[in-house]
Amino acid sequence: MYKIKVYSVGKTKETWLQEALEEYEKRLKPILGFEWILAKTDENLKQLLEKEANFICLDPQGRQLSSEQFCHFLIKELERCHSRMSFVIGGHSGIPLKLKTLSRNLISLSKMTFTHQITRLILVEQIYRSLEINKGTAYHK
Amino acid sequence: MYKIKVYSVGKTKETWLQEALEEYEKRLKPILGFEWILAKTDENLKQLLEKEANFICLDPQGRQLSSEQFCHFLIKELERCHSRMSFVIGGHSGIPLKLKTLSRNLISLSKMTFTHQITRLILVEQIYRSLEINKGTAYHK
Repeated sequence: MYKIKVYSVGKTKETWLQEALEEYEKRLKPILGFEWILAKTDENLKQLLEKEANFICLDPQGRQLSSEQFCHFLIKELERCHSRMSFVIGGHSGIPLKLKTLSRNLISLSKMTFTHQITRLILVEQIYRSLEINKGTAYHK
Repeated sequence: MYKIKVYSVGKTKETWLQEALEEYEKRLKPILGFEWILAKTDENLKQLLEKEANFICLDPQGRQLSSEQFCHFLIKELERCHSRMSFVIGGHSGIPLKLKTLSRNLISLSKMTFTHQITRLILVEQIYRSLEINKGTAYHK
């Protein structure tokens, strides 16, 4: 079974976010182990990532991918990294430079700046969408 | 006072979406009149838009803008169109071709495909973000 961890800074205070994330996590559960790791600060994020061999940072300077390209990228990375991978979402000041240089790849979701909350929601939906694209279902027409 | 209408296809079934949209609408209320117009079908969307002189469609073929560029675009359009403007979010099959040709501009939020629900949330947040950028607040650092 695939296992994906997402590191990010801050709490899940919003009930709407909690509910939206749970909806996607429920759908992912049968096929993918999904885990949120919430760092308190940028410093704490760096410490937590010291234990991670491979991670992908979301950053405006990163490569933009279509959902089909993201699916291809995700599946390839999971195969390459023994079915395990991690994403990192930066806090208010973005991804610390040190983490950017250690990141296997930088991915950008959009030219626009999104809130931390919306970024988390987009990422989990794109992961779910990728698995549906890979299965060839009607979710992604 | 500015007035923005957003046309889209489908209902707001998800309680998380309702809650998230209400949060931004509440913040926008003192500065902007905001209205959702939910069409039942693509055909219904076309009918509703017959009364609209100016509208902007969200479409993957559109121009990608940073949040700062979107703010600039939004303010310019509002000034040009007597403080009123409309956006259109397509349904499952995207924006009908007829509407694309009538659209003043096509805007793309990302190379990725988002759900209808997430697109609505992103748009309302980018509108709020634009007004904050325009006011020069700390919301968009």
